[in-house]
Amino acid sequence: MCELLAMSANVPTDIVFSFTGLAQRGGVTGPHVDGWGITFYEGKGSRTFKDACPSSESHIAKLIKSYPIKSEVVISHIRQANRGCVSLENTHPFTRELWGRYWTYAHNGQLSDYLAKFQVSRYQSVGDTDSELAFCWILEQIAAKFGDRRPDDMQAVFKFVATLAEEIRALGVFNMILSDGEYLMSYCSNNLCYITRRAPFGKAKLIDTDVVIDFDKETTPHDVVTVIATRPLTENENWHVMQPGNWKLFRLGELVIDL
Amino acid sequence: MCELLAMSANVPTDIVFSFTGLAQRGGVTGPHVDGWGITFYEGKGSRTFKDACPSSESHIAKLIKSYPIKSEVVISHIRQANRGCVSLENTHPFTRELWGRYWTYAHNGQLSDYLAKFQVSRYQSVGDTDSELAFCWILEQIAAKFGDRRPDDMQAVFKFVATLAEEIRALGVFNMILSDGEYLMSYCSNNLCYITRRAPFGKAKLIDTDVVIDFDKETTPHDVVTVIATRPLTENENWHVMQPGNWKLFRLGELVIDL
Repeated sequence: MCELLAMSANVPTDIVFSFTGLAQRGGVTGPHVDGWGITFYEGKGSRTFKDACPSSESHIAKLIKSYPIKSEVVISHIRQANRGCVSLENTHPFTRELWGRYWTYAHNGQLSDYLAKFQVSRYQSVGDTDSELAFCWILEQIAAKFGDRRPDDMQAVFKFVATLAEEIRALGVFNMILSDGEYLMSYCSNNLCYITRRAPFGKAKLIDTDVVIDFDKETTPHDVVTVIATRPLTENENWHVMQPGNWKLFRLGELVIDL
Repeated sequence: MCELLAMSANVPTDIVFSFTGLAQRGGVTGPHVDGWGITFYEGKGSRTFKDACPSSESHIAKLIKSYPIKSEVVISHIRQANRGCVSLENTHPFTRELWGRYWTYAHNGQLSDYLAKFQVSRYQSVGDTDSELAFCWILEQIAAKFGDRRPDDMQAVFKFVATLAEEIRALGVFNMILSDGEYLMSYCSNNLCYITRRAPFGKAKLIDTDVVIDFDKETTPHDVVTVIATRPLTENENWHVMQPGNWKLFRLGELVIDL
């Protein structure tokens, strides 16, 4: 299995605190030692940092923990390989372009008997994971249904993705994070939770390492920041635990679809 | 304008030495302060590090200079903006997937009156540079001509790209680096040179900063490493200067097409 982390915010926000907790699970407090990755959106641009080595030991993860990149949308993943070997091409998140936007995706879970379903041509897998192929298939279905130009009603697109995710969940465990850089979707198969922080901000303490942050000192009263994770990252806050089949759509930190 | 750097090697090789020289041109010995990026292929996987700030000041560039990532193919670019604002989405190299491979591209030069020519739908620009749109157009033409599966004869694909590059050169200056992770193509409009290093290896001294390397200590007798750059990076070696309209195709460090 793997662990997911994502963020949606209404102001460029760094994810150093949450990533510090997650990275510990890549070899210290968790067994997810088969690579890790993190994608930051900055405006329409995005950049992804990846390593096939454990996040708790990675030079690049150390940079991410010490160098605050301010972003409106972040997706991160630490991997414990089940399908596909340990290699850079099998490391999440995966990114493809559609409608002049970078779409980024990460998956936690495992699928079976999926090859017949995931027929693709426009978007093809580079690696050999079930996860990447499912992502390619989702994008292929979106492009087939909505055409070559970005529709005005993007919520309709994510509603369609939810129906695809439901189909995929029939093949196994499918906890998914997906973003086009503006919207952030989370789909729960069995393990996913989230928290939305807004004023009045308080202190939070990581579960996985002895770090405390006082968000009141790091934010302004107008900030709204949602963090999504496989398991809660802090021990003194109330995380919303998602139920199997639930999905949420966030934009600028706010929940815009709650199903 | 901008500067390009690329490498093709028959063994995973780090580019720390060459990148150290190039990064100086991003604010110290050169005026290319509007961002930089570098893509490393490791097997079929790839990872790109980017920053919209000058390479000479970038925390991430400092990591790349100190953390040797071993790669068979590398593409790097430092930017002095002409078309398109300074932002992450306008920072080269650009990457798209085709035939289950990541294709990576960087461009030096400037094009005019290109919008009518570069009609795209499958591959669309995220940013607003002439460079990225030209890349999207090239991939769109490749997919249209060769279909949805990677042909056995990849050299035919790059020969076709050369005809497209020739068309693009009619619109301005088009020095280009393109790779699918296996092949590395360089197309010269006015400024591009390369060097192939093989045994017996010697010492090399950077032009842009006071660094000397003894390749004999860093290599094995079987290593073949080609480096491509806008201008020579070392002062005591003979770089091959490409001529306008020339293009070269490299694979595993060796020149396989020389036109």
